[in-house]
Amino acid sequence: MNYFNPENTICAITTGGGMSAIAVIRISGKKAIKITNKIFNKDISEVKTHTIHMGNITNNKEIIDEVLVSVFKENKSFTGEESVEISCHGSVYIQNKIIQLLIEKGCRIATAGEFTMRAFKNGKIDLSQAESVSDLIEGETKAAHKAALHQLKGGFSNKLQSLRGKLVDFASLIELELDFSEEDVEFADKKNFQNLLKEIRTNLKKLIESFKLGNVIKNGIPAAIIGAPNVGKSTLLNCLLDEEKAIVSDISGTTRDAIEDNLVIEGYNFRFIDTAGIRNTADTIENLGIKKSLAKAESSEIILFLIDASTDIQNQVLELEKLKQSHSEKIIIVLNKIDVARKSINLENTISISAKNKVGIDSLKQKLLDFVNITEINDNESIVTNLRHYEELSLALHEIETVINGINSGISSDFLAINIRQALFHLGSITGEVTTDDLLGNIFSKFCIGK
Amino acid sequence: MNYFNPENTICAITTGGGMSAIAVIRISGKKAIKITNKIFNKDISEVKTHTIHMGNITNNKEIIDEVLVSVFKENKSFTGEESVEISCHGSVYIQNKIIQLLIEKGCRIATAGEFTMRAFKNGKIDLSQAESVSDLIEGETKAAHKAALHQLKGGFSNKLQSLRGKLVDFASLIELELDFSEEDVEFADKKNFQNLLKEIRTNLKKLIESFKLGNVIKNGIPAAIIGAPNVGKSTLLNCLLDEEKAIVSDISGTTRDAIEDNLVIEGYNFRFIDTAGIRNTADTIENLGIKKSLAKAESSEIILFLIDASTDIQNQVLELEKLKQSHSEKIIIVLNKIDVARKSINLENTISISAKNKVGIDSLKQKLLDFVNITEINDNESIVTNLRHYEELSLALHEIETVINGINSGISSDFLAINIRQALFHLGSITGEVTTDDLLGNIFSKFCIGK
Repeated sequence: MNYFNPENTICAITTGGGMSAIAVIRISGKKAIKITNKIFNKDISEVKTHTIHMGNITNNKEIIDEVLVSVFKENKSFTGEESVEISCHGSVYIQNKIIQLLIEKGCRIATAGEFTMRAFKNGKIDLSQAESVSDLIEGETKAAHKAALHQLKGGFSNKLQSLRGKLVDFASLIELELDFSEEDVEFADKKNFQNLLKEIRTNLKKLIESFKLGNVIKNGIPAAIIGAPNVGKSTLLNCLLDEEKAIVSDISGTTRDAIEDNLVIEGYNFRFIDTAGIRNTADTIENLGIKKSLAKAESSEIILFLIDASTDIQNQVLELEKLKQSHSEKIIIVLNKIDVARKSINLENTISISAKNKVGIDSLKQKLLDFVNITEINDNESIVTNLRHYEELSLALHEIETVINGINSGISSDFLAINIRQALFHLGSITGEVTTDDLLGNIFSKFCIGK
Repeated sequence: MNYFNPENTICAITTGGGMSAIAVIRISGKKAIKITNKIFNKDISEVKTHTIHMGNITNNKEIIDEVLVSVFKENKSFTGEESVEISCHGSVYIQNKIIQLLIEKGCRIATAGEFTMRAFKNGKIDLSQAESVSDLIEGETKAAHKAALHQLKGGFSNKLQSLRGKLVDFASLIELELDFSEEDVEFADKKNFQNLLKEIRTNLKKLIESFKLGNVIKNGIPAAIIGAPNVGKSTLLNCLLDEEKAIVSDISGTTRDAIEDNLVIEGYNFRFIDTAGIRNTADTIENLGIKKSLAKAESSEIILFLIDASTDIQNQVLELEKLKQSHSEKIIIVLNKIDVARKSINLENTISISAKNKVGIDSLKQKLLDFVNITEINDNESIVTNLRHYEELSLALHEIETVINGINSGISSDFLAINIRQALFHLGSITGEVTTDDLLGNIFSKFCIGK
């Protein structure tokens, strides 16, 4: 698909699929008004931008629907192109019929994210803002929404622009120095340059560090459910999610792969990870699963350590103590099967539940919320939520550190210039100053159609 | 729920549920603009009708989304009330947040169909037009869409208005005659009156007759699948629908209830009815099912008589001959299991298929289309598609016939006046000149929210 032919006029249904009261079809491109005029019974060639016109969509003389047509003139629309929105009755038949007519009259169906891509191409927004549109639509929690909106409003871009701008200034001085290197002239003020590099390094580190929070915001706080086999880990996962996600059986070792799913509790997104039971076993596959479980415990923010209160807990407590050695601060001890517990258990700071009978789950959710330590995001704070941005920032940081070390060890400017150019490339690829068609195709293919 | 308080300003999401590029929230009522102003960062009090304004939806100072706000002034909107449409990013979070803010600022959530109900209440459309809005949204085929659009455009209403108007004129003359009955004056020209009654009867009959087509358009052409047990009726249904709708087994008599579902073939809507196998059996429940099967054959437009070609067909042909006696013109004979047929079968006009292997299905579909005899609907023709209208028309016809017979047998005007008033009531209830709250509640509760 050629994303880059601005001669094409594109169309798509932008509202939710299926039957609804109203549906909106968006058209963008040089012929948006001309094509609409061919199927609309009023002439919208000369109307003002941002006006709405009621009339009929017709096919020859047959009326298809009574609609509202909104007109956006070039430079005043989201895409920066001449655009029209048709608000029709939300029958699937009507939506498809109008799209079909638009195609007959010269539109083509927009590819995923193509409207936003055109907004980027036409300079209405930069690449990181364009990417935030998709995040904004997918954001399910307040925090995710706030981070995406901040990015859409250009907060993150402004910060990067400022860093990059300063770096460009110095880079040009260094390049100049290279041109005259045989004359042994030093244009760049090394002291100032080093200070700038350190400032950039601090800022990059801060942004990279924010990805930990950003990732939690976007993908949820990882909480691993850990425990001996058959203590009810999968039952707890199903109970929390209120669906049959994991296969539950009485046979120990039923769960081998880690099963994950998200649950939003009071606006906070948790990512629960069901794991294989931990025990001594000779089963090779099961051992692989156990190894995975411990790795999941390692990488999680929260460990729900599940103990079966209905059996002898001695061995279970031993495993708990092992985990406590390195992760004590993130463990929540959960006593399960309390409805069939044989005796009272002497463990401090526990939550008692029966996952099977859904008892004590509210207390457990409250305990999970107590663990959440997401400071309210400041409106002016940049949070990196996008893996691509995180990677580019990390690569830029690596180049900057190479330059800092290079200066200290007296490496010549021509080598440093290469690293600086690389750093500029990585920073520029976030906001889209440096892009390739492949990169754009990859980014926008993840969008939904109609955006 | 009080539908009738025009003081309430109502709001709802009008586009399809869930995540999408764009969602539209509609607000209607006296305070639509005032309430929007409380959450929008631009003042829309003084803007022109049918204009679009870009800005932010905010909660105190926190930005919720960047949106487009469309303004419709009183009398120029769909509802006839001051209306606003907010076009926001289609994240579920944003949609819910904006609705929540609107409620905080004084809106209430619209009940199903309430926007259309208000359009009716404010005289923008009559009741039969209002009902067609729902049909228009649900219409899945070209014919259903055309019939609903004709009704929305007022075609049906105009016809009824004209009939009713003439009847009202005569009714007033008759009432006048009653007032002066002791003076033995005859105002109403009996000859003309009888002609009018006959004209009304003809028109009512035509409309009532059109419901047969209207019902087919709306609900599909009923096609019953009939045959001996275990000839593959359920397999054929599943094969046609391309899903596992009916339970299939080798055990004869698996299907007891008639299972129905629709399939659109080249724009025509068929309603397939799987039935219990026909045979002599002592099983009481199965016999009930067989009785039902024959009733379904009776009421269907098409009978697919399925014969198992892999077994002895003698008894099956006997049943076929029985059905042919009364329904020969609507039977399609289908030979199933041709992949395992033991010998060639000597039956005329058959379609050979293997439902299990999906062989011959296209030929069968073509044969079904040959049976369709829906004349293209004329743009100016009124088709009754609504059961409520059909019932009111039938009741009106009954009253008109009583009057015609009454005049012939010399019944006095005061009795006739009662029947005429009843006829006027039934005709008026279709277009909404005569309504009750219960009737309106019942009609609009079937709408989707947001319409």
